[in-house]
Amino acid sequence: MTTTRMPKRPSKARALRQLLDSGQLEFIMEAHNGLSARIVEEAGFAGIWASGLALSAAFGVRDSNEASWTQVLEAVEFMADATEVPILLDGDTGYGNFNNLRRLVTKLESRGVAGVCIEDKLFPKTNSFIDGERQPLADVDEFCGKIRAGKDAQADPDFCIVARVEALIAGWSVEEALDRAKAYQAAGADAVLIHDKARSFDNIQRFAAAWDGSCPLVIVPTKYYSTPTDVFRKAGISLVIWANHTVRSAVTAMQRTVREIRETETLTGVEDRIAPVSEIFRLQGDPELREAEKRYGGDAGAATHALVLA
Amino acid sequence: MTTTRMPKRPSKARALRQLLDSGQLEFIMEAHNGLSARIVEEAGFAGIWASGLALSAAFGVRDSNEASWTQVLEAVEFMADATEVPILLDGDTGYGNFNNLRRLVTKLESRGVAGVCIEDKLFPKTNSFIDGERQPLADVDEFCGKIRAGKDAQADPDFCIVARVEALIAGWSVEEALDRAKAYQAAGADAVLIHDKARSFDNIQRFAAAWDGSCPLVIVPTKYYSTPTDVFRKAGISLVIWANHTVRSAVTAMQRTVREIRETETLTGVEDRIAPVSEIFRLQGDPELREAEKRYGGDAGAATHALVLA
Amino acid sequence: MTTTRMPKRPSKARALRQLLDSGQLEFIMEAHNGLSARIVEEAGFAGIWASGLALSAAFGVRDSNEASWTQVLEAVEFMADATEVPILLDGDTGYGNFNNLRRLVTKLESRGVAGVCIEDKLFPKTNSFIDGERQPLADVDEFCGKIRAGKDAQADPDFCIVARVEALIAGWSVEEALDRAKAYQAAGADAVLIHDKARSFDNIQRFAAAWDGSCPLVIVPTKYYSTPTDVFRKAGISLVIWANHTVRSAVTAMQRTVREIRETETLTGVEDRIAPVSEIFRLQGDPELREAEKRYGGDAGAATHALVLA
Amino acid sequence: MTTTRMPKRPSKARALRQLLDSGQLEFIMEAHNGLSARIVEEAGFAGIWASGLALSAAFGVRDSNEASWTQVLEAVEFMADATEVPILLDGDTGYGNFNNLRRLVTKLESRGVAGVCIEDKLFPKTNSFIDGERQPLADVDEFCGKIRAGKDAQADPDFCIVARVEALIAGWSVEEALDRAKAYQAAGADAVLIHDKARSFDNIQRFAAAWDGSCPLVIVPTKYYSTPTDVFRKAGISLVIWANHTVRSAVTAMQRTVREIRETETLTGVEDRIAPVSEIFRLQGDPELREAEKRYGGDAGAATHALVLA
Repeated sequence: MTTTRMPKRPSKARALRQLLDSGQLEFIMEAHNGLSARIVEEAGFAGIWASGLALSAAFGVRDSNEASWTQVLEAVEFMADATEVPILLDGDTGYGNFNNLRRLVTKLESRGVAGVCIEDKLFPKTNSFIDGERQPLADVDEFCGKIRAGKDAQADPDFCIVARVEALIAGWSVEEALDRAKAYQAAGADAVLIHDKARSFDNIQRFAAAWDGSCPLVIVPTKYYSTPTDVFRKAGISLVIWANHTVRSAVTAMQRTVREIRETETLTGVEDRIAPVSEIFRLQGDPELREAEKRYGGDAGAATHALVLA
Repeated sequence: MTTTRMPKRPSKARALRQLLDSGQLEFIMEAHNGLSARIVEEAGFAGIWASGLALSAAFGVRDSNEASWTQVLEAVEFMADATEVPILLDGDTGYGNFNNLRRLVTKLESRGVAGVCIEDKLFPKTNSFIDGERQPLADVDEFCGKIRAGKDAQADPDFCIVARVEALIAGWSVEEALDRAKAYQAAGADAVLIHDKARSFDNIQRFAAAWDGSCPLVIVPTKYYSTPTDVFRKAGISLVIWANHTVRSAVTAMQRTVREIRETETLTGVEDRIAPVSEIFRLQGDPELREAEKRYGGDAGAATHALVLA
Repeated sequence: MTTTRMPKRPSKARALRQLLDSGQLEFIMEAHNGLSARIVEEAGFAGIWASGLALSAAFGVRDSNEASWTQVLEAVEFMADATEVPILLDGDTGYGNFNNLRRLVTKLESRGVAGVCIEDKLFPKTNSFIDGERQPLADVDEFCGKIRAGKDAQADPDFCIVARVEALIAGWSVEEALDRAKAYQAAGADAVLIHDKARSFDNIQRFAAAWDGSCPLVIVPTKYYSTPTDVFRKAGISLVIWANHTVRSAVTAMQRTVREIRETETLTGVEDRIAPVSEIFRLQGDPELREAEKRYGGDAGAATHALVLA
Repeated sequence: MTTTRMPKRPSKARALRQLLDSGQLEFIMEAHNGLSARIVEEAGFAGIWASGLALSAAFGVRDSNEASWTQVLEAVEFMADATEVPILLDGDTGYGNFNNLRRLVTKLESRGVAGVCIEDKLFPKTNSFIDGERQPLADVDEFCGKIRAGKDAQADPDFCIVARVEALIAGWSVEEALDRAKAYQAAGADAVLIHDKARSFDNIQRFAAAWDGSCPLVIVPTKYYSTPTDVFRKAGISLVIWANHTVRSAVTAMQRTVREIRETETLTGVEDRIAPVSEIFRLQGDPELREAEKRYGGDAGAATHALVLA
């Protein structure tokens, strides 16, 4: 046995960086717990968006920093444990100032999360699709200091900090958005997420056309979803985040199934259209545990079984 | 202002007890996080089953006590915060001995959980549908001591401890199941959950016919789901738990949606069949926060807004 | 058995309120974990100050909201579980805006914490004894909205919200401090903590002399500790918080003991001057568990003991 | 910038392994939170013992797995964050079966903990100094499977699993202890902790004399503390754990200080013999934060300061 640790694969942070730098349009998909993360990975996505909206929705709280940052950290740790592809955490404002972000970056790295996206708003945050115009932006210098602090805190040079520009959301001009994006890139951001809640891609297209390419651009086409994907590609976007459709599909299915069971008082109508229990076991990784029980001599009541035989 | 605290409604524990004692067949439905709990409540169910299988699946771990009991506690707290109807936690074996159960009961009460179901197996547990025959059962006296300890620990007399008999799962006879059930009831159990993984209801029907009615009976018809519900009713069952269909429906929907987005590289095909973002906001209780912001003078950047104006 | 829950003693919140309203000078003492909380209670103190400085120091982090609010919540829950006297949590700024405070109050109540003290600074906080003059204060209206939100959120009318005025710390006048205190009291604060880092009691004495008595006054004489306690009494102070001396005494003792063991490479020099292991067991409540094992039939290996005999 | 991560120092796990393999008698010292861990490190100890007794005592609960394993994990993470020297966690029985231990090992590695010590008893555990004779031991094969599972789970080959032999505690012979130790070493244990609660070192001396040296021996001289340290050295012991004296010294100091303040109603008697507040700040690492604020442009109210100036 050698005493040098040889990682079997490139780090997840490296994988995220490669996605951002691939030179072609890439896609990552929202997940909000270990289960949905595994489903996203199994569908073939090369990365996962740990959405603040979806995470808070899954908790049953609002997207306004009601869950603590360590509760979010624990949720994303379960997601990272369940998957091999990189996770980019929607880190809101970094949950405080530059010092809170430093701490967050260190903790995310230890949990195997590949990167964090932070937005130039104030703590506690409000979702961008709610009264966006009324939401004040962070001061540029203060936000740049936060980015620099985060970059200095990371141990793995591949860990990614994505700076999310909320200027368009808050009703500012494309020029203001570009000024901010440039400042954030200069402060060390590995990519810029330019967000908008318009139903058209126009503003972001103008933004992308004026962008100097000094770092990759990331978009979240939740509102302008009808824009053909090739338009994003031609605009030079590097990464598209499908930001909340996993949880939204789960909601619709759960509402339908639960209502039907409530009304019919039987499972017969739903049994055939939902995943069997065995599929849940498979997604949980149960077969590995059954194998391990053979390998390590344990079983269902392993803590005591051998003793009973003794 | 009076200094006496007057709860506006009966406690959730009382509501669970009333469900068990209603004299008619009642139903509770699985949920695994705050979001699904709210969906179950909105569908009209009078109670929620916090399933160990579904909770562990949502975490992305196995139903073998891989998540710690405090991680489960935190998940069920989010569920209780998101709903008004009572929650019965699937508490596995109580996560240890009588002392661990005492601690669990106290903590569940403080989180507003109405009751806990414990099963007569050993820690760490294995799901009943996996190699059930190989799973050793707890000693009856030891399990009765655990029940007594739990009952002595509760502060609210309405908090319910449901004793789950795994004898049929483990390949023992209906008589053994009845002996255990009777002992658990005598030790203080508020109800008996008689579990089976046969595809037929026969054994439980025999069990129910022989039961003396000294406490309510609870069943989980996951495997014998095709049995008409009236058969349960006529057998004198008090409570049916639809134990895992919420998470199973979510899995199917998420798999379908995520795969389609992966293949088509666009949202246009899925947008119309999934819940809109506004529905997510509604489920999160966002309108209340918007109202509260008016009432308390805050807003999106409330920590600083007034200061900026000053 | 009656189904009405009859608490055996007044709530901890009631006990804290009675301390504040007793009409004589009362004292509470810092603790930072379950162990020190029990020690404070055993010494005869009628209440405990869960100090933000001491809690963060015990964690090994800085008093700048590096630990998340749920990590603080968990620590104070252990403290409340270990004691019967009321705990007043040093809640910094409430960890965000009015909405974060609402959530905090609800969670503190469920954990058996009697009250929370919030200060009119900004999140994330800095300890008052570090560069206090540079620290901006919260806007008065915004802070009053936070107090009102907290009061509206509490379920037990006795739960106390203490408003901590940092004006003197930040270099403002006694008049500004009085204006703020009056506004906070009008917004619903149950008491006002007037803080200062001067070595003299003069400013607070002037403050107290001008105070209209509309709610109790609380002080933290860390810096002006040499002021005779009767001076506080005559000034009409209701509650003195000895805010950090428990952890400071622990530090000195641990440093001395650890260094000596390091240097001498033996325990013989320290064994006689430190608590015996049996005293640790006693403080942990071990005797109760030994009794309970007899009552519930368990023992050291309770999960399996009876099974082995079977 | 190179994209290869170059750790600046050998891993903590490597440092623990070097302690075990140094060929001379080494010492590690108990700590129970971030603060005491830093104090132990500052005193010059090359390693830290995260004692289950001391951790549970600090929480205010019993040493019987009342705190969950993730609560212990979080405490030891704070300790690892606060220090550079390696931490060996007293991991009780591994908190369950082989599978629970696998999970624990993975999580400890991610938190920067260098090793874990597991004992051959049953979950939930009882402290070895309480009714030790009544405590059943784990089956040897089952415990060996647990060790193998833990070793297979670690990613860093230097992570250490120390097998603690409780045979002498439970009243078995030195020969039984040797048989167990040999089996555990063969299963992969990196060291053997041979524990005893006798006041004499005799049994362990016999054990050590008969040991074949296939792996290092570790002892915990809490009860036989009067044995001269050179006796341990000559017996060929590799590592001595001073297992609970940090918390015991803290208890004595806190009891004395708190009682005196309670009786005298003033701080004047204690102020000079306890650490000043500035020492607490220093131990928390406050100077680094003050420097960082200059570097990143933040300050006390960093989230908003720049905005206010704007």
